[in-house]
Amino acid sequence: MKYCFGVDIGGTTVKIGLFTTKGDLLEKWEIKTRTENHGEAILPDVAESLEKKMQERGIAKDEVEGIGIGIPAPVMDDGVVQKTANLGWGYKEVTREMKELTGLPVAAGNDANMAALGEMWLGAGKGRKNMLMVTLGTGVGGGIIVNGKPLVGAHGAGGEIGHICVNEAETEACGCGRAGCLEQYASATGISRLARRRLEKDDSPSSLRGAAISAKAVFDALKEGDTVAGEIVEEFGRYLGYALTSIAVITDPAVIVIGGGVSRAGEILLEYVEKYFHEKAFFANQDTRFVLAQLGNDAGICGAAKLIL
Amino acid sequence: MKYCFGVDIGGTTVKIGLFTTKGDLLEKWEIKTRTENHGEAILPDVAESLEKKMQERGIAKDEVEGIGIGIPAPVMDDGVVQKTANLGWGYKEVTREMKELTGLPVAAGNDANMAALGEMWLGAGKGRKNMLMVTLGTGVGGGIIVNGKPLVGAHGAGGEIGHICVNEAETEACGCGRAGCLEQYASATGISRLARRRLEKDDSPSSLRGAAISAKAVFDALKEGDTVAGEIVEEFGRYLGYALTSIAVITDPAVIVIGGGVSRAGEILLEYVEKYFHEKAFFANQDTRFVLAQLGNDAGICGAAKLIL
Repeated sequence: MKYCFGVDIGGTTVKIGLFTTKGDLLEKWEIKTRTENHGEAILPDVAESLEKKMQERGIAKDEVEGIGIGIPAPVMDDGVVQKTANLGWGYKEVTREMKELTGLPVAAGNDANMAALGEMWLGAGKGRKNMLMVTLGTGVGGGIIVNGKPLVGAHGAGGEIGHICVNEAETEACGCGRAGCLEQYASATGISRLARRRLEKDDSPSSLRGAAISAKAVFDALKEGDTVAGEIVEEFGRYLGYALTSIAVITDPAVIVIGGGVSRAGEILLEYVEKYFHEKAFFANQDTRFVLAQLGNDAGICGAAKLIL
Repeated sequence: MKYCFGVDIGGTTVKIGLFTTKGDLLEKWEIKTRTENHGEAILPDVAESLEKKMQERGIAKDEVEGIGIGIPAPVMDDGVVQKTANLGWGYKEVTREMKELTGLPVAAGNDANMAALGEMWLGAGKGRKNMLMVTLGTGVGGGIIVNGKPLVGAHGAGGEIGHICVNEAETEACGCGRAGCLEQYASATGISRLARRRLEKDDSPSSLRGAAISAKAVFDALKEGDTVAGEIVEEFGRYLGYALTSIAVITDPAVIVIGGGVSRAGEILLEYVEKYFHEKAFFANQDTRFVLAQLGNDAGICGAAKLIL
């Protein structure tokens, strides 16, 4: 039996998975991400953890096809990172360093792209070669799979769909410094913002008044028939659905996978997004399917493992 | 010496080029596109023309790496076309049929993607692996090169950038049936439309009044200092420049190549587009370069030849 490792490096923990090359996740575990001293211990810690696991299971090096690594930053095709927001790394040759530490083949990619690749391999995009994954969390992330491979781009910044402009009239600034980015309307924080704006507009009754506003609260209220929550989700669906028509006409995915914390709202979220998508989508993209992500927090290790195969 | 053929099938003529595999265009010629009887003669005509050329030059079959074909329609990765607007073809297995006719390896792709691939190989995108080509003609076409290969997509419709929505307030319909598509503002006909709208708005003096309106007339008037023409080109530049920020944040090109008839206006066109691009571009895309296409009508045969290599 042949093995491979998928590693998902986050700002707090590193998730690691041991897979068969056929795609069975045999075991997963976590280690702490030590970001001090410019994160110099991160890769050695991972290498040590892999080494231990191989000893523990009696796996020989020549039974391991390699190690895939997902990183929360733009990653060039050659496995080089220019800088990271949460790991302490500046310029780092991730692939080269990890190869030297382990003696195994290594490939590295951006974490959003790895999540997309994971869903394609073992989750909601199974069997598809052209896929868009949208992650609705604190921000809006994107991973684009073209003919089975992640769209990395010239700066490792491919698929940064949270920062397409969807509202030129917006006056509040996005975290990126511009205004009107998709992320300002479709992320968890974006939905809260839409909710606050809507509630301030007039005093129509809503169960959202006086409560803590969150994307979850909005979807919960919607499910209980709250009219104002319905209007907020319509606005969210319109921004995201219309934006996805543009992304679809550019990248032509067979399936759009929606993941991230906001997607826990379930199928009802898809309804609102699909409605507006189909209203504006180019004819060639009308049969693009929408599905919820299936792998949750495991998507990253799955995609990283797939990257090395 | 090794050879390959690049074939660019258009609605009126088929352009053919004989290349060395190093990228020297040795000879190019055209044959008529016979679209009658569902275009059944097109591929046999091309095969016959290639055969004749090989005999004429004493080229043996095993010296030819293969034939690349560009087609004005969506083309799937396996060389299958579902339908064409101008060739008479319905469903057609282009790659398979051409292989049978010639006994040579064949690859086929969409003509806009082939033009992009051609500019990457021998033109304005030389040395780049991630590139966006924008063709401003009667419509707005796009070809996206990701890691050296065209982004084909699930339906062969990748890169249809003329149909991203850039103006939700638009009331006139686009050719695709929707409204507010980039093509309605940035194509030759789109620029004429912007010009007519601007001229009707008030009676400020302009050399464009009373003359035949065309994209060329607008750029010519701009170069002579016509204020109204300047306003029209600003509007064109704003629509195209802003749209390209969204396309760039999704596909992360190193270079954006502008071609097509409208691009004959020259470097001045790039100035207006770049200005608005840089105003809104995501930080990772700020160093994306803009260049004019270099291969003109040869881009298609060059890209088709590259596809087979």
